[in-house]
Amino acid sequence: MEETTLYKSEVLRNFCAGILIKAGLKEDDAGVIADSLICAELRGVKSHGIVRLSTYMERLEKGVLSIDKGIEFERKNGAVALLNANNTFGQIAGYKAMNTAVDIAKTYGVAMVGVKNSNHFGIASYYSMIALESDMIGIVTTHSSPAIAPYGTVVPLLGTNPISIAVPVSNGKPIVLDMSMSTVARGKIRYSALKGEEIPEGWGLDSEGNQTTDPDEVLDGGSLVPIGGVKGSGLALIVDILCSVLTNNCLTGEVKNITDMSGPSRTGHMFCAVNVASFIGTDLFRNNVSQVANQIKSLDAVKDNTVYLPGEIEYNLEEKRKKEGIPVEQKVVELLNGLANRYNLPTL
Amino acid sequence: MEETTLYKSEVLRNFCAGILIKAGLKEDDAGVIADSLICAELRGVKSHGIVRLSTYMERLEKGVLSIDKGIEFERKNGAVALLNANNTFGQIAGYKAMNTAVDIAKTYGVAMVGVKNSNHFGIASYYSMIALESDMIGIVTTHSSPAIAPYGTVVPLLGTNPISIAVPVSNGKPIVLDMSMSTVARGKIRYSALKGEEIPEGWGLDSEGNQTTDPDEVLDGGSLVPIGGVKGSGLALIVDILCSVLTNNCLTGEVKNITDMSGPSRTGHMFCAVNVASFIGTDLFRNNVSQVANQIKSLDAVKDNTVYLPGEIEYNLEEKRKKEGIPVEQKVVELLNGLANRYNLPTL
Repeated sequence: MEETTLYKSEVLRNFCAGILIKAGLKEDDAGVIADSLICAELRGVKSHGIVRLSTYMERLEKGVLSIDKGIEFERKNGAVALLNANNTFGQIAGYKAMNTAVDIAKTYGVAMVGVKNSNHFGIASYYSMIALESDMIGIVTTHSSPAIAPYGTVVPLLGTNPISIAVPVSNGKPIVLDMSMSTVARGKIRYSALKGEEIPEGWGLDSEGNQTTDPDEVLDGGSLVPIGGVKGSGLALIVDILCSVLTNNCLTGEVKNITDMSGPSRTGHMFCAVNVASFIGTDLFRNNVSQVANQIKSLDAVKDNTVYLPGEIEYNLEEKRKKEGIPVEQKVVELLNGLANRYNLPTL
Repeated sequence: MEETTLYKSEVLRNFCAGILIKAGLKEDDAGVIADSLICAELRGVKSHGIVRLSTYMERLEKGVLSIDKGIEFERKNGAVALLNANNTFGQIAGYKAMNTAVDIAKTYGVAMVGVKNSNHFGIASYYSMIALESDMIGIVTTHSSPAIAPYGTVVPLLGTNPISIAVPVSNGKPIVLDMSMSTVARGKIRYSALKGEEIPEGWGLDSEGNQTTDPDEVLDGGSLVPIGGVKGSGLALIVDILCSVLTNNCLTGEVKNITDMSGPSRTGHMFCAVNVASFIGTDLFRNNVSQVANQIKSLDAVKDNTVYLPGEIEYNLEEKRKKEGIPVEQKVVELLNGLANRYNLPTL
C-alpha cells in the first residue's frame, strides 16, 4: 500500500478551486472543475480525481486548452442543443450541457445536448447524477483517445468511450452505472507493466490482434479488449458517432489523449435527460426502482458475497469519505504542492 | 447442414400475412408482423424469423396474446409518448411507436416513445432502421425473459435485453448495431446441449455462479454470462428500467418468455429517434459517418480477414437473399404448412 494522508473533502476542493482561480478561471467555473475532481475522489475513482489537476494546468499553461473564448450554444432546436466548448475545460461545458438538458426535459420530457471542441470532463457520473436532483434519468457519454480496435482490425482507433446512466430511487442510493467499453481500464494494464506482472487473458491484445498476457505487448501498439468483443467495439463506435460526428467535432480516432500536448484534444460529449414524470408518476417510479433494487439485493449471492447495485459501492464510499476524509497518496500531495508553489498559494 | 428450400421473400411474406389475416388481424397489421419476420430471415437472424409465427399463433389462439383492444396512447407530452399495447403483437405496437418517435423528432429533434403491455416484437433492427428513412438515428431496446443474473448473484432475473442502434450513411450500407447483453444467445447453448457438446468458457454459469463448459448446467438453473461481467449486467438492468419500470409495465423479472403460455408476457420496449438535422447538416453527417466507416474498412485486419462494420454482414446477406431467395429448413416448412392446414390456406 502507498502511504496516504487523510484530507477533508472541503480542503481538497478549495485547494483545487484556488489554483484554478489563480490561473484565471471564474469562481463558479473553478468550483465546478474542483467538484468533479472531488466527486471522483469521494467515489474511489482516483484516476479521475485530483491527480488530473496537474495535467489540466499543464494544458492550460501550454495553451492547448484555453479559457479565453468560453462556451457558447451553436444550436438550440426544441429538445436538442449543441454547445461549442471553444476548447475550454470539459467540466465547464459538461456542467452547462447537463443542466441545460435537465431544463429542456422539464418542458419536453427528454433532451439531448451535444458538446464539441471540449476537453477531458473528469468522471462521467458527476454529470449523470445532476439529473437525479430533478427526478430525471441522466445519460452521459464521451469519446476518448484511441484504445480499442474496431472489431476484426488490429488498430486501436476507438476510445474506451465511457457511458454513465443515473436512475433516481426512493431509498437514497441511486442506481449509477459508470462504465467504459473496455474489459479493464488501461491504467490497470500500465500498473501490471510497472510491476512486471502478467495480465489475465481477456484484458489486452497485441499489435496483431492476438490475446496476450504480456502488458507491454498491449501498451506497445496493441489494444484493449472490448466487452463482448464485437459488441463492445460496436458500442464504442456508436458512442464516437454520437459524441463526435453528430456534434460536428472531429472524426473517429482524431481525439487526443489528455497527456498529448501537441494541440487541442477535440473531445466531444453527449448529455441526455429523461424526465420520469413524462412517463409515470415520479413517486411510483422511484418506489418501483427501489423495489427492483431491494429484490436484487435479496437474491442468493455467488459464494455468500454481498450483492451491490451499480454505483452502490461508490455511494457507500462517498458517505464514508465525506465523514472521514479522502486518502491522498504522498506522491499526489507532492504533485499538488508543486502546483501550489507555482501559483504562489499555500501548500496542502 | 439441414436440408433447406429457397423461397422468394414475397412468397414467405404473403404466406405469413395470409395466416395472420385469416386469424383476424387487419391487413396493415398483418403486413407489419410479416415484414418483421422476413426482415429477420433476410438478415440471417432466423431465430427471430418465420419460425416464430407458430408460437405467435399459439399465443393468439390460447388468448394469452389478444388483438381485441388494439394499441392506444396513454400519454403524449412534448417529445415523449407512452403507448399501451393492450397485449397485442409487439410488432404492431413497435411499428407505431417507432414511427411516432420519428414524427415527434421531426419537430423536437429527439423523441422517446415507451411501450407497455406488449409482446415479443421480433428483430430489434427492424424498428431502429425505420429512423434511417428520415435521416435519423434510431435507438430501440426491449427487455426479455430472465436469463442473466444481476452481478454477484446466482439468479437469472434480467433478460438478455437487446439494443439496436441504426445510423444513416451516404454509401448505402447503414451502420446497424443489434446486440444483446449476453456473451452468446441462449439458442447457441441449447444447440450445444442438443448435440452433447461442451461450450467454451465464458458463455454460461451454473446455478452457483461458477463458469461451466457443460451446457446442461447453464440451462438447468444457471445463467448466461453478460458482456463484460458487471458491465453487461448493469446495462441489462438499465434496459429493464427503461423498458419496463419507466413505462409502468411490470417489475424486473416478471416478463414472460414467448413460449410461456401461462398468461400475457408483459413485455415493454423503448424507442428513440434522434433527428440528425437538429445537430448538423444531414449530408455532412452521412458523409462523415461514411468516411469513418471507410477508414475502419481500410484498417489492417486481424490475420488478413475482411473487416465488417456493425450490420454490414446482415446488409450483404439481405441483398443476396432478396435476389436469390430465403433458405428455409424442411422442419420449418412443415411447421408453417401445419399452420396453413389449420387455417385452411394453401401450403408453401
